[in-house]
Amino acid sequence: MRDFLPADIRKRNYVIGIIREVYESYGFEPLETPAVENLETLTGKYGEEGNQLMFRILKRGEKLDISQGEKGLADLALRYDLTVPLARVVANYKNELPKFFKRYQIQPVWRADRPARGRFREFYQCDVDAIGSSSMIVEAELISAVSEIFERLGFDDFVVRINHRVMLTVILESVGIPTTQQIDALISLDKLDKIGIEGVLKELLLRNIEEHVAKQFVNLFQSLQDGAKTANNNSEWNSKILSALSEIIKHSAYPMPHNAKKDLQEIVEFSESVFDNSHIKIDPTLARGLSYYTGAIFEINVPDFAGSLTGGGRYDGLIGMFGKEEIPACGLSIGLERILFVMEERGMFDILIAEGKLKADSADVLVTIWDEKTVGESLKLANELRSNGLRVLVYPEADKLGKQFKYADSIGIKTAIIMRDEEIAENKVKVKNLQTSEEETFAREELAEKIKSR
Amino acid sequence: MRDFLPADIRKRNYVIGIIREVYESYGFEPLETPAVENLETLTGKYGEEGNQLMFRILKRGEKLDISQGEKGLADLALRYDLTVPLARVVANYKNELPKFFKRYQIQPVWRADRPARGRFREFYQCDVDAIGSSSMIVEAELISAVSEIFERLGFDDFVVRINHRVMLTVILESVGIPTTQQIDALISLDKLDKIGIEGVLKELLLRNIEEHVAKQFVNLFQSLQDGAKTANNNSEWNSKILSALSEIIKHSAYPMPHNAKKDLQEIVEFSESVFDNSHIKIDPTLARGLSYYTGAIFEINVPDFAGSLTGGGRYDGLIGMFGKEEIPACGLSIGLERILFVMEERGMFDILIAEGKLKADSADVLVTIWDEKTVGESLKLANELRSNGLRVLVYPEADKLGKQFKYADSIGIKTAIIMRDEEIAENKVKVKNLQTSEEETFAREELAEKIKSR
Repeated sequence: MRDFLPADIRKRNYVIGIIREVYESYGFEPLETPAVENLETLTGKYGEEGNQLMFRILKRGEKLDISQGEKGLADLALRYDLTVPLARVVANYKNELPKFFKRYQIQPVWRADRPARGRFREFYQCDVDAIGSSSMIVEAELISAVSEIFERLGFDDFVVRINHRVMLTVILESVGIPTTQQIDALISLDKLDKIGIEGVLKELLLRNIEEHVAKQFVNLFQSLQDGAKTANNNSEWNSKILSALSEIIKHSAYPMPHNAKKDLQEIVEFSESVFDNSHIKIDPTLARGLSYYTGAIFEINVPDFAGSLTGGGRYDGLIGMFGKEEIPACGLSIGLERILFVMEERGMFDILIAEGKLKADSADVLVTIWDEKTVGESLKLANELRSNGLRVLVYPEADKLGKQFKYADSIGIKTAIIMRDEEIAENKVKVKNLQTSEEETFAREELAEKIKSR
Repeated sequence: MRDFLPADIRKRNYVIGIIREVYESYGFEPLETPAVENLETLTGKYGEEGNQLMFRILKRGEKLDISQGEKGLADLALRYDLTVPLARVVANYKNELPKFFKRYQIQPVWRADRPARGRFREFYQCDVDAIGSSSMIVEAELISAVSEIFERLGFDDFVVRINHRVMLTVILESVGIPTTQQIDALISLDKLDKIGIEGVLKELLLRNIEEHVAKQFVNLFQSLQDGAKTANNNSEWNSKILSALSEIIKHSAYPMPHNAKKDLQEIVEFSESVFDNSHIKIDPTLARGLSYYTGAIFEINVPDFAGSLTGGGRYDGLIGMFGKEEIPACGLSIGLERILFVMEERGMFDILIAEGKLKADSADVLVTIWDEKTVGESLKLANELRSNGLRVLVYPEADKLGKQFKYADSIGIKTAIIMRDEEIAENKVKVKNLQTSEEETFAREELAEKIKSR
């Protein structure tokens, strides 16, 4: 777990600020849940891995029952993700929440994972979910919002890959992979980007899928992609893939529980009506690990990072686990730490700082202290500048001016204000540019404007 | 521990936003530390009460040693306050932090307290501290910043009570209270507001302080206050108290370790040079519970709330507990939950909402969906409005307009946008005021401005 010093926080807050602003412009509302949940709320929701990686909280005093082993020791645990708390909230506060509830939530979660490059035991999730509708308008708006976030952060090369869980099921069935082996097959398929067609084939055989079935399975995806590779842009690619998927569906003996191809088509179509150049690309191999997805799934990638920067999808069954009612839902999670990592690697923050969009310093000016007697005047001047919108640091002691300038310089402040008895008497202020050492004297009332116009 | 639904978060974020903005205008820098600290960092810093109220985290798997009892069960704990983590950070990152480090930190802390009205097991602290200087400029700036926060939040009746630990020690010594009983005496004195002079006297006797000493002690404070009660304003009050304190010091046999009266005088003087009407009032009975204060102490109160809304002081010894060096420090902590409570009770949020400073709704307009075929156009229009700075909710399904209006109304949205085939054909948009049911038609390109001007 990490301490975040001021320079880190400024970058994090910049990114979080844009995420929040865009979500709010789409009518998503903020939600926050406690860091600590009842252990039973979390148990069984994240599989065996989750059970192992969860931080449990020791019971206190008389409640602690050591004789029973681990069982009597904890009844609370730290938040493990933001989706289960959302499902709990939606079930608990049904009557207080609107019929369609669009919420965003930006909070840390904790996992006792082995720390690695870009993986931490405490990390932030930025989740956005829309509860209560099965319409593809939900998917389209989620993708539109997250695309706007990436654009506003300065990414121009991201791809929103989309696919559909039911479509995958149709394909799995149509090539004859038995239900019991479908999850295994999807897990292998999801690695296609990393291990290639040959790698996936090898894994499928290791997972005891019959060779002719496995071959048919990988060949089908190969031919889907081959058929679309002449496309000149995402839009053409998507049309070609959708046509090919129609063919598969037409020849599949498996009955469609709902219209997966229509879902994908609508998402693409809605998205194209909003963006001139949509970042959406249908990827028939995208599978997503989590088992609770029931419809469209999506992921955002950039070329220079191996994992995804955002992932999500439709999960119409999860909320029903907490309440009596099945409530349709769709959402996505933005990987804040990964975005920060890529932005840092690409030098995007340096650009933002150079453009003045991100502050790298703690103040716009340093107000120096001339001597013990003029402290009050310096404090008063500092407040005048603050009320004009400037960030003002006051040197905390009367000391040699040279020492005060050196301090300002050491923390990146470029302007120092000097007010000696003579300036005070004339209602003037001296301004020193710490980079050029130039000094100028201004009337006190015009000081704020002069500094701002620099 | 509480879930915060959207209406709560908006209020919390409004208050936090002002706190952050004011702190940053004073050059305070943001710091964040992990929710989880090593148990040994926290142990022994908060007294016996802290040890009992700390949430410990269960060790996992092979590390768990049940045979040793509680001892082998935990080596981590949840953050208990923000001051100890700050002291750890200052000691750990000495070379990366500036000589004078001004930081603010707004994060939750956890205490396994019995929940009560206004007391929670998870609650936010808003701390601001200035490290590295012994000058009273630090105290003056801290008080100036926090006063500005209260003013900007809309409080006009708060009082910043200040006192000095060394001054209290002088008084305790001068009336002859033995060193071993001084903390007891201060704890009783701190309750003067609640239990009165008679109550304090009774407590002192119960704590085995000799009757004539106890009487002299309370009489001294009584006469200090009596002597100043003719003051017409805080400034006069402070002068009178300072003169009286001078007298006490003059006649005290106890040597002054440093000039406590000068400290108080400077804080008052600096503050009066910044504010026309300073909220500062010296209160010789203010003691503050925490044992680590070494100099000036302060507290902010309002008439209609029994506890303090902010408290703090100078603690020049604490950081030395983590590093090799004694580093002077001074800070204060704003009680976010208490401020929210008082603002709610006083109806201050309703005023902010009426003034348009605080949003109570999730969006400025609802864009309706006329039918399946016009979804793309509605989504496009929504994005046009968003890029003009509006918060726009899109109804997630094609449905009867009446139902869509009713939904908007149920969540407090006052304006609905309608775009049927005929509006689309003419590049126009219909706007419905959901309170008056009036409808108006505008050219699409002037829509955003029309809505904003309402």
